[in-house]
Amino acid sequence: MDALVFDGQLDLREVNRPQPKPGEALIRVSLAGICGTDLEILKGYSSFHGILGHEFTGQVVECAGQEWVGRRVVGEINLSCGECSFCLWGLGRHCPHRSVLGIVNRDGAFADYLTLPIENLHAVPDEIPDEAAVFVEPLAAAAEILEFVRVAPSPRAAVLGDGRLGLLIAQVLRSSHSNVIVIGKHESKLQMARSLGVKAVDLARDRLPAASFSLVVEATGSPDGLREALRLTEPRGTVVMKSTFRDMARFDTAKLVVDEIKLVGSRCGNFRTALELLQSGEVRVQPLISRTFPLSAGLEAFDYARNNECLKVLLAPESAKA
Amino acid sequence: MDALVFDGQLDLREVNRPQPKPGEALIRVSLAGICGTDLEILKGYSSFHGILGHEFTGQVVECAGQEWVGRRVVGEINLSCGECSFCLWGLGRHCPHRSVLGIVNRDGAFADYLTLPIENLHAVPDEIPDEAAVFVEPLAAAAEILEFVRVAPSPRAAVLGDGRLGLLIAQVLRSSHSNVIVIGKHESKLQMARSLGVKAVDLARDRLPAASFSLVVEATGSPDGLREALRLTEPRGTVVMKSTFRDMARFDTAKLVVDEIKLVGSRCGNFRTALELLQSGEVRVQPLISRTFPLSAGLEAFDYARNNECLKVLLAPESAKA
Repeated sequence: MDALVFDGQLDLREVNRPQPKPGEALIRVSLAGICGTDLEILKGYSSFHGILGHEFTGQVVECAGQEWVGRRVVGEINLSCGECSFCLWGLGRHCPHRSVLGIVNRDGAFADYLTLPIENLHAVPDEIPDEAAVFVEPLAAAAEILEFVRVAPSPRAAVLGDGRLGLLIAQVLRSSHSNVIVIGKHESKLQMARSLGVKAVDLARDRLPAASFSLVVEATGSPDGLREALRLTEPRGTVVMKSTFRDMARFDTAKLVVDEIKLVGSRCGNFRTALELLQSGEVRVQPLISRTFPLSAGLEAFDYARNNECLKVLLAPESAKA
Repeated sequence: MDALVFDGQLDLREVNRPQPKPGEALIRVSLAGICGTDLEILKGYSSFHGILGHEFTGQVVECAGQEWVGRRVVGEINLSCGECSFCLWGLGRHCPHRSVLGIVNRDGAFADYLTLPIENLHAVPDEIPDEAAVFVEPLAAAAEILEFVRVAPSPRAAVLGDGRLGLLIAQVLRSSHSNVIVIGKHESKLQMARSLGVKAVDLARDRLPAASFSLVVEATGSPDGLREALRLTEPRGTVVMKSTFRDMARFDTAKLVVDEIKLVGSRCGNFRTALELLQSGEVRVQPLISRTFPLSAGLEAFDYARNNECLKVLLAPESAKA
């Protein structure tokens, strides 16, 4: 099968179709999404080598549990041991022995097929098309703010960063009755935010006063974002940090201490919540698709995804049409 | 009167005795403590110019409210406007219009006399001697962890830093039934921790495994402390940041995000809690006094306080003996 493999550089290669182990499903990938984390991996983040990709939707083609065969699915990306204290407390996402689809020690979704344990799968309801289901993983990450950090509803919330993730987070916060604005640099993306019904301001044009928000979500993908996020946060406010990048961030810890700000890291989220947000229509994702490339044009797709003006770039394996 | 004034350099000067405004008390300082923040101010932190010092105990000598005259007091260091939204919510410590005794726009306690608004004063119970009362401000800061951050009781807590503040925080956490160890670099201070009944380990001798603690309080006073604090914290754990320093800190935000760690800044605390902890004997502070200097030897006292092996250095104005 075709796969986009990273081993220091990114290549499209012919590789063997994976064999599902007992308890695993073989899934034919219908659509996969390129994420900022994928772009960071190309720069060295997480030292991953293998088939990239962790955002996908597909169809189960082989599985010991016959009830799954033929179903459209999305899949949780953390593969945990099930036995450590984190797993026993329901925090398998933090299992120290975990592998992570397309990120840590596990081949990912930029391929015709992938395998995942059955317990990682969620069936996709009929009314959610593939083009929306492929957003479940990043939308779950966006929605985790509501669960782990419990910041909503917030009367004065800002999302710093107008990229894919920022626009998902802004919609999630709005769905939970927060008063939220997106702060960004890209006029086309800010327009997209407005067309999704979210207020948006251009950082270059309107430098907002310090301490304007009780909640700021940092989703810029840049080490400099944290400083601006702290500047915008009022005393006793919360900054949620969503970006992962390879570089170290520098910031003024005195601001954090003197203003007694909470800085909370947030990564993956609950797939069920994301599916509900799509099903209810509270979050709209399909307008965020900038372009869909065939998997065979994967390298071109990555070049395109690096363009600052684009939002979500999808990959469609040929085999999905078969 | 004598005062230790900082205006780019530290000097002992003869200055006018301050005049209490309506609603203020004139206090004769009995004892004052040198804090890490004072040492940072000498390096440029907070751009403060004026009489240094914010840890003190003293006696009210002049006050419109006659019931205060003659009483031994400690005083909250934040002078707030009383009218902004922070003040109305009981968060005067975060009033954007505030001044701060010996730190921001308000002459401090390294002098024979100081003034403070009556509402900032707390009477010191008879059974708490001056040598303990002078610790109320830093002890309140230590105890804030229990109130704002609500981290205790914690089954696996560490205090990183074996200085004055670290040893107060460790005792506070122990008083709230946390299982706590102090991690430090100074054998004499680690011995002090043990003599106060707190477990202590030498960072140089025992490099603790990563992710060993659910709660780590960063009290090293060094920008490098944050990285070690994050290393020691388990996924979904909490790091409380107590140090204020002038330099920027660099850290790996990916660790914060991937492990979904909460990093919480914490500054001042509730004086009443601190007085109760002293009164109950749950926290012992007098063993932390390394040396007491007369105010007239203030410059020498600062040199002494910079010594890494010392804990709390106190200043005693001559007038207190009068």
